[in-house]
Parts: sequence; structure tokens; C-alpha cells
Amino acid sequence: MISSALQIALAHHRAWIDKDLDLAMSYLADDVVCEAPAGRIEGVEAYRAFLAPFAERLLIRAEMIAAFGDETTAVIMYDTETVPVASAPAAECVTVRDGRIVHNRFLFDRAPFEAAARRRQ
Amino acid sequence: MISSALQIALAHHRAWIDKDLDLAMSYLADDVVCEAPAGRIEGVEAYRAFLAPFAERLLIRAEMIAAFGDETTAVIMYDTETVPVASAPAAECVTVRDGRIVHNRFLFDRAPFEAAARRRQ
Repeated sequence: MISSALQIALAHHRAWIDKDLDLAMSYLADDVVCEAPAGRIEGVEAYRAFLAPFAERLLIRAEMIAAFGDETTAVIMYDTETVPVASAPAAECVTVRDGRIVHNRFLFDRAPFEAAARRRQ
Repeated sequence: MISSALQIALAHHRAWIDKDLDLAMSYLADDVVCEAPAGRIEGVEAYRAFLAPFAERLLIRAEMIAAFGDETTAVIMYDTETVPVASAPAAECVTVRDGRIVHNRFLFDRAPFEAAARRRQ
């Protein structure tokens, strides 16, 4: 049986992978906190501003590597193919409360994106 | 009940966090493959060469964020405090066969380590 936190995490993931940011954001609490590589992101609007450029402009496709969870916590790891980087894996550890994601520890390697940005300069 | 793959992943993790590289490597298959941010690492000796400098010289402490698994796969996410970087989280997705780790998708953000290296130059 799939855990309730994992259901929410996967539904959120599928939505933004499909570039449906409205649906993706509906799984987040208004005061969601995301600890991302570049720092702390607070609130659903800031989260959308963080994710939208990646989801809408850079992402070509994503492939799930692993997904686990219990009642309150889920971890997913997936690979992404993006415009600047052929393989950019990421991992997210989300905490769910009352059916919404309230916290996300979001992990990916910024190095290849920074290298691609330098090449474009 | 803790899954068998997760037991192996956690035992391996605890060993290298405690800087016991011999014990840590005993949980890896001889022909282990690790997909790390900098590329593919093949074989237990190469894996040790990848992990030892981090475990023995850079790591100050580690704290588990999440750990899940089933019979063959486990995912752990943890934060590390290191000499160059105050918070350097990582995630690993390991595949276990016959009691040993045969594959690891190893994920962390190289950007703060690269920035610290540039500051030292």
C-alpha cells in the first residue's frame, strides 16, 4: 500500500513534471518551506517562482529512480533530462501535514548548471 | 520492520560516518557501481578512493534526514557538516543483492565545495 505522504509527493511531482504548475502548487501548504541548494524558500509563491523556470523552460523529461514514504514523510529520487544538462538527478524529502506538503528538503547538484551558464557567457 | 536493503545501507553509512572504511567497504560488492555527481565509479577500490578523503578528512558530523527501503532498494538522505561546507546534504539510492550493495546513485551538491576550493586558491 502506498503511504499517504508518498501519494501527495508523487501527485505533486507528476503535476510539475507535466508542467501543470497550478495543480502542482495545490499540493503545497501556503506556508511551505523548502530547503534548496541555493537556500531557504518560504511560501507557495516563492516555491512556484523557484520551480516554474525549471519545469516550464528547462525540463525535457524525468524518470523516477526511487520513491518511499510513511504517513508523514516521503523521499523520491529521480533523474531529469534538461536543456542545459543531459542528466540532472534530484532527491526530495517532503513532510506532509493535513494532505499538503509543509516542508521539502530538495537536493540536486548545481555544478553542471553553473558550468552550462559559464559556457553561455 | 526495517527492510533488508535498508539494514545494509544504514550499516554501511554508519561505518563510514565513524571513519571505519574497512567495515564500510565490507558492505559493498567487489564490482559495485556508483553513479556520483562527478561520474561513474566502478569497483570497491575506486569507491573507497572516492569516499575516504571525504570521510576521513572533511567530515565533521552527519545527521540522518530520512531512510526508507524495501527488499532490494534503500534511499537515505542525510546532512553533513564538513570542514569546507557547514551543511552539505546528500542522498543515496542503493541496490542490494546477496547482502551487498551493488549499485549506488549518490547525490550531493558540488557547488559549495567548488566555491570553497576557489576561495582557497
